[in-house]
Amino acid sequence: MAHQKTFDLRTRGRGTTEITREVEKLVSASGIPTGVAHIFVQHTSCSLMISENADPDVLRDLETLAGRWAPDADPAYRHDTEGDDDMAAHARSILTGTSVSVPVGNGALMLGIWQGIYLWEHRTHSHTRTIVVTVTD
Amino acid sequence: MAHQKTFDLRTRGRGTTEITREVEKLVSASGIPTGVAHIFVQHTSCSLMISENADPDVLRDLETLAGRWAPDADPAYRHDTEGDDDMAAHARSILTGTSVSVPVGNGALMLGIWQGIYLWEHRTHSHTRTIVVTVTD
Amino acid sequence: MAHQKTFDLRTRGRGTTEITREVEKLVSASGIPTGVAHIFVQHTSCSLMISENADPDVLRDLETLAGRWAPDADPAYRHDTEGDDDMAAHARSILTGTSVSVPVGNGALMLGIWQGIYLWEHRTHSHTRTIVVTVTD
Repeated sequence: MAHQKTFDLRTRGRGTTEITREVEKLVSASGIPTGVAHIFVQHTSCSLMISENADPDVLRDLETLAGRWAPDADPAYRHDTEGDDDMAAHARSILTGTSVSVPVGNGALMLGIWQGIYLWEHRTHSHTRTIVVTVTD
Repeated sequence: MAHQKTFDLRTRGRGTTEITREVEKLVSASGIPTGVAHIFVQHTSCSLMISENADPDVLRDLETLAGRWAPDADPAYRHDTEGDDDMAAHARSILTGTSVSVPVGNGALMLGIWQGIYLWEHRTHSHTRTIVVTVTD
Repeated sequence: MAHQKTFDLRTRGRGTTEITREVEKLVSASGIPTGVAHIFVQHTSCSLMISENADPDVLRDLETLAGRWAPDADPAYRHDTEGDDDMAAHARSILTGTSVSVPVGNGALMLGIWQGIYLWEHRTHSHTRTIVVTVTD
């Protein structure tokens, strides 16, 4: 029987926010010993990812690369309704994805020791983002 | 108890086809109130993604960027058995993925209001694509 | 009731190792007729992907493209603790993902005939990688 919880997060513009602890708490509350935790973000201009959790430079370098994968204000874009970062944000969301999922074992997330779960905000301004966590067994 | 259904889709060459309604119908038919809907495509030259569903320019701009991420007819490719778009299609499939998954709550897909589920055909010609939807609870 | 198994794999440096057979065996052992197989790697410098399984040139060409998406030794990187391939490996892991999931039907993986499941090692040296397979129904 699936266990589900929704929570909101206020981002501070482009950059990452670690949400491992929030997800871990929901997994623990579910009482599910073995299964999969599915984390989903209900937006198309931010994404979720599992990244290295020790050196903040990794997250900085990812931002640098994202600027090449989908630059802001590219003259080829037709979609710029909400500004120079609008289409870049959608494209980065497609490349990195709106969900991640992590196995659950012994009632806890089975992440590797260097893995953390991050919300990656791709818009330059602050946004409220809604995340849905579903644990299935 | 998982609920599963397979359906085929005829693409019209490179571009996107929204499948949100088909998936929503299968979720509804499953009778599962809370869980995860998993959507999978059994091919390596198209992909599934969750993208912005309001402005068609977003999908056009994604096509423009995909042409940079994995250009057609790149001289560095060795694999071109089926033409100039062959390897580009495989690479775009790797970057954007063969599955998406969406939480189910109150018996419906918990998509954000601007999110739609799309099949992205990466081959220039029309193909029949098989999609498997599995709802678990 | 979820069925879960963990196994280790020794890579031989950058490149791919097919794990379809290992996953198939675990799905079969689970006795689950209908559901989803979730495959997860507990590391941030390799990834999992579903790719074409017939022509090894596809995997070579993917390596070529990955070298553009996230080059080794890029002068813009700040993170290079473990060498020139360190940050490139993290970025490739983000682009291609730490998990894949495949529907299970009739007690078997519902892969397309040209699809295989691969571990993609992004570090230049050999590593032991831990993979967790969870089958839910």
